[in-house]
Amino acid sequence: MTDYTALSLSELKALKAELTKEYEKYKQKGLNLDMSRGKPSGSQLDLSNDILTMPIDNYITEQGIDSRNYGILDGISEIKGLFSQLLDIPTKNIIVGGNSSLNLIYDSFARLYIFGANGSTPWGKLKTKILCPVPGYDRHFAICEEFGFEMINIPMTETGPDMDMVEKLAKEDPDVKGIICVPLYSNPDGICYSDETVERLAKLETAAEDFKIFWDNAYAVHHVYKETKLANIFELSQKYGTSDRIIYFFSTSKITFPGSGVSMMASGDNYIEEIKKHFGVQTIGHNKLNQLRTFNFFLNAKGVIAHMKQLGDILKYKFDIVLNKLDSELTGTNLLTWTKPNGGYFVSVFTLEGCAKETVRLAKECGLVLTKAGATYPYGNDPHDSNIRIAPSYPTTVELNEAMDVFCTCLKLASVNKLIGEETK
Amino acid sequence: MTDYTALSLSELKALKAELTKEYEKYKQKGLNLDMSRGKPSGSQLDLSNDILTMPIDNYITEQGIDSRNYGILDGISEIKGLFSQLLDIPTKNIIVGGNSSLNLIYDSFARLYIFGANGSTPWGKLKTKILCPVPGYDRHFAICEEFGFEMINIPMTETGPDMDMVEKLAKEDPDVKGIICVPLYSNPDGICYSDETVERLAKLETAAEDFKIFWDNAYAVHHVYKETKLANIFELSQKYGTSDRIIYFFSTSKITFPGSGVSMMASGDNYIEEIKKHFGVQTIGHNKLNQLRTFNFFLNAKGVIAHMKQLGDILKYKFDIVLNKLDSELTGTNLLTWTKPNGGYFVSVFTLEGCAKETVRLAKECGLVLTKAGATYPYGNDPHDSNIRIAPSYPTTVELNEAMDVFCTCLKLASVNKLIGEETK
Repeated sequence: MTDYTALSLSELKALKAELTKEYEKYKQKGLNLDMSRGKPSGSQLDLSNDILTMPIDNYITEQGIDSRNYGILDGISEIKGLFSQLLDIPTKNIIVGGNSSLNLIYDSFARLYIFGANGSTPWGKLKTKILCPVPGYDRHFAICEEFGFEMINIPMTETGPDMDMVEKLAKEDPDVKGIICVPLYSNPDGICYSDETVERLAKLETAAEDFKIFWDNAYAVHHVYKETKLANIFELSQKYGTSDRIIYFFSTSKITFPGSGVSMMASGDNYIEEIKKHFGVQTIGHNKLNQLRTFNFFLNAKGVIAHMKQLGDILKYKFDIVLNKLDSELTGTNLLTWTKPNGGYFVSVFTLEGCAKETVRLAKECGLVLTKAGATYPYGNDPHDSNIRIAPSYPTTVELNEAMDVFCTCLKLASVNKLIGEETK
Repeated sequence: MTDYTALSLSELKALKAELTKEYEKYKQKGLNLDMSRGKPSGSQLDLSNDILTMPIDNYITEQGIDSRNYGILDGISEIKGLFSQLLDIPTKNIIVGGNSSLNLIYDSFARLYIFGANGSTPWGKLKTKILCPVPGYDRHFAICEEFGFEMINIPMTETGPDMDMVEKLAKEDPDVKGIICVPLYSNPDGICYSDETVERLAKLETAAEDFKIFWDNAYAVHHVYKETKLANIFELSQKYGTSDRIIYFFSTSKITFPGSGVSMMASGDNYIEEIKKHFGVQTIGHNKLNQLRTFNFFLNAKGVIAHMKQLGDILKYKFDIVLNKLDSELTGTNLLTWTKPNGGYFVSVFTLEGCAKETVRLAKECGLVLTKAGATYPYGNDPHDSNIRIAPSYPTTVELNEAMDVFCTCLKLASVNKLIGEETK
């Protein structure tokens, strides 16, 4: 394909005229397309419809608890056992939460802000800094920003965050209190942390005694093309005596129904006990009937894996459309690079410097909503204005095909405008 | 009945011998009785069993939302409408929470601790004081203690907290930031705030601009003997321009299933908007399917009222046992005063000064667990060591009869010991 960056000014201008025509054609169509959020499609949700109709025939748990009544702060043993099997974390280190792991992450930050950890100074009283691998998840950044914690960009590599930089900052600066990670199929790049990265995190030398690794393993079982195995940070941290440093998050939100799933967190023996003390003041425990419903639907880790195979097949179909379009429309153009994730929910693309916002703006005017440019960076500030997150799950395949056509046209038009601008400077 | 306080020393000693014999008899029985927590009985829970088995046939809400998917931060319109009908609060002022209003209360305190309200100084940076009507709810006090807020005891009267004292403290001390109330069938006394009390709270003159009334209307529909009408603080606060001061809490935990109900909070237009902003960072919204299940079970406010009639009948049976035993065993003894609540979950008794702990200790040694003496006061410190909360809902009627016999014996023994101690001083 044509290398756009090698074209002459007149060639670019001719291309611009062509692309503008194409763009105007889309604009006239009055489209209403959305690739902005990692929202499951109806067919993904249908896979879990039994949860809507399966009665709870027996509300007494295996431990003899009436799950309709008060009692059990940290989750019924059935669901704790299921999570333990699935993620290979001891049940004693697990606390089951409500319908959203994001809520558990927020509350974990709030807890550290107010109380510190195991006797340390509350983070709210310090110039707390959090390491943020970028691009990353906008809602994580929103939480850090909410608490006024300074976010430090850590560039992502193919094996996870730049660990040299992480090690240096964690070791030298006692204000660096943590790092927030999506270690498997990262949001948005779909990068999987290598065994070495996970081990280096587990044995990190930190100036802050109460350094925490917010381990948001949201896509732990969301394999699409190929199953990638993530090293068990929990096991490794035990080896290095750092397990109180880990706060592990997971939920079934993107497995069954978003907003009606079951979340969990886990930490080392000491810190999980401290969390439980605060947890016991904050809540009487979370919805045990929802835990039971979710357990009854899966029965064991194998049930989850089988379910995720079906879900992965649906997602694969969508990912194929996105990746094939990018391949056929943009390979060799030098206008875009993109990741080819093996799982997760997103495809992450990098435009020429300074073209992400303009692409998103053009798309929006055409009726295609993309994730806001910059959203994948702390403070909404992508230093290169280059990253766009594509979320292919929600649209139908027909919509997705059209959305990708629109996207490619907008991207090309924004890029050509930029190249013309540079030529005529 | 004999006035114990008028007996001579030798009469008291004879009585003590008799009571000790009775007490030892109970002790030998190896009882296992519990009147400690406001936990519903199996027959109360059975009233809601349809929630366990009713399928969700239609997951699309009246607003066309797929309740299985992401979306809707503040609750589906069905359940907001139900709460609005039931409590006479505009839907626009309501945010629906998770399974527990306690969690919403905790988070509300945390939010004020970290952020203040509408631009005020965060409470965590101040010498914050909270007015606590006593006796009160131990979990409220645990939350205030968790955040290091100083609790100030406000004596309860038959019409609610001593409003002269509340008005004086709120007006004179800018560190006094709020009051935490169970305004209807208060925990533990079952006291209902009078119209005048509610109005005085609504128009309270406060030194703190960001004064909050934590209005935990947990027993809003928990009538047992007689329906008591609570003045609408929301309406009154609008009249006085103070509605941002109210944070109103309610849940269906003690209506359907504890731990699987739906909670809500409400506040004035400005403050509810501020809460929503933080809420939107903290969560993706709460379990919409549980909201739908709860709504489907009741359909409207009338459905809740009809359900609560049945639930009240079950509770009435238990309350009768407690109150009749107290009447027959202790009227005229001058050893105990107690409340006769028209609703709620508890009977609150007041022993002679210094006899509550000893009564609870004696009962425990006999196999009867009562709410810890002191628990109904901030810091677990009942200045008169006099109040005991009796929670009659959970035991069976047979157990409850026996438990009350044990209680009366322990109370008498503790009192007689105290009277003998005074006589022989």
